Amino acid sequence: MKKDILIVGVAGGSGSGKTTLTNNLIARFGDQVTVVHHDNYYRSHHDLTYEERTHLNYDCPEAFENELMIEQLQLLKEGRSVECPIYDFTIHDRKPETVTIEPKPVILVEGILIFAEPELLKQMDIKIFVDTDADIRLARRIRRDVEKRGRSMQSVLDQWCATVKPMYEMYVEPTKKKADVIVPEGGRNQVALEMLFGRLERHLKQIRED
Amino acid sequence: MKKDILIVGVAGGSGSGKTTLTNNLIARFGDQVTVVHHDNYYRSHHDLTYEERTHLNYDCPEAFENELMIEQLQLLKEGRSVECPIYDFTIHDRKPETVTIEPKPVILVEGILIFAEPELLKQMDIKIFVDTDADIRLARRIRRDVEKRGRSMQSVLDQWCATVKPMYEMYVEPTKKKADVIVPEGGRNQVALEMLFGRLERHLKQIRED
Repeated sequence: MKKDILIVGVAGGSGSGKTTLTNNLIARFGDQVTVVHHDNYYRSHHDLTYEERTHLNYDCPEAFENELMIEQLQLLKEGRSVECPIYDFTIHDRKPETVTIEPKPVILVEGILIFAEPELLKQMDIKIFVDTDADIRLARRIRRDVEKRGRSMQSVLDQWCATVKPMYEMYVEPTKKKADVIVPEGGRNQVALEMLFGRLERHLKQIRED
Repeated sequence: MKKDILIVGVAGGSGSGKTTLTNNLIARFGDQVTVVHHDNYYRSHHDLTYEERTHLNYDCPEAFENELMIEQLQLLKEGRSVECPIYDFTIHDRKPETVTIEPKPVILVEGILIFAEPELLKQMDIKIFVDTDADIRLARRIRRDVEKRGRSMQSVLDQWCATVKPMYEMYVEPTKKKADVIVPEGGRNQVALEMLFGRLERHLKQIRED
């Protein structure tokens, strides 16, 4: 394991502000960071029809191919590039193509359930949980899924009540205890961001000095 | 207001680990930091007997002379030294003498209820809430009050159930939402400490460069 690669996990419920926080870190550190999205490791289900796939539970730890993500994070930590899968939400399945991820001094791992799998958790040097009230998260989810992903309001609300909320309470909320730091209101929290900036600057400075 | 003085609030329940976290920051930054303890601003009650003072509620925002603390923090921020009161827990009252606190680049403000008073909250540039389970906090409180402060186990448990716990739930827990960052397990959380180190190093570097 190379000491000059820091893996930072960013977890939190759907709509908590993980992406905003992650984007703020990218804006600050540019090509010194890269992001690995847990969402891209949703298991492929080529064997099922579209209709069947829409009824799967996507909010539990088993929905992800964690073993592949762990393997790829270990390779990145060794300084090697990986072929990351790409998940397509519109068809609820993995795309045939992959995307190459290069190792960088800081690797952000982003996802709702990244703290739920102990072996995955072990890969992370810093664990951040973005904590936002459930109503605010639902409001953001509606905006994202209806406006940007073309889902119907009905299906978004049904999914929220049937799986997102109960699965959050069962699998995500308990992982808050695994976090090193909890950030209320995620990406819009400038003070927390500056703490993270300070920590990552410290890491990049250490690399330069070695 | 001087830009080169950063006020960092460290709140959290009794036994949460505020002191350990604060001591870790002092060990790291030495004479570049100073600590102002909210406890020292408990109102004086020279008018009451010792017996009467033992029955006061020390776990609500009104128990503190916040107006004095706000005034002194503002003076420190202007680069002036202050005469901080000293509270003596063994007699449940303020001592006649004071202690001089000099302004430093980083001023730590530590206390259970420092986020409960909006005017006090406004003085802080960074707000950290140390979050530890209630049972762990009780265990630490017993160790501290019985072993170090000479109280009886009975009185510690009675006080916990009668005031500390209900007052925590009423006044302290809701202030978690005011925090910029929540630190699980406080002073023993090395990853969170390093984030704080990074942020404060950043501040001290900015001062040197100005």
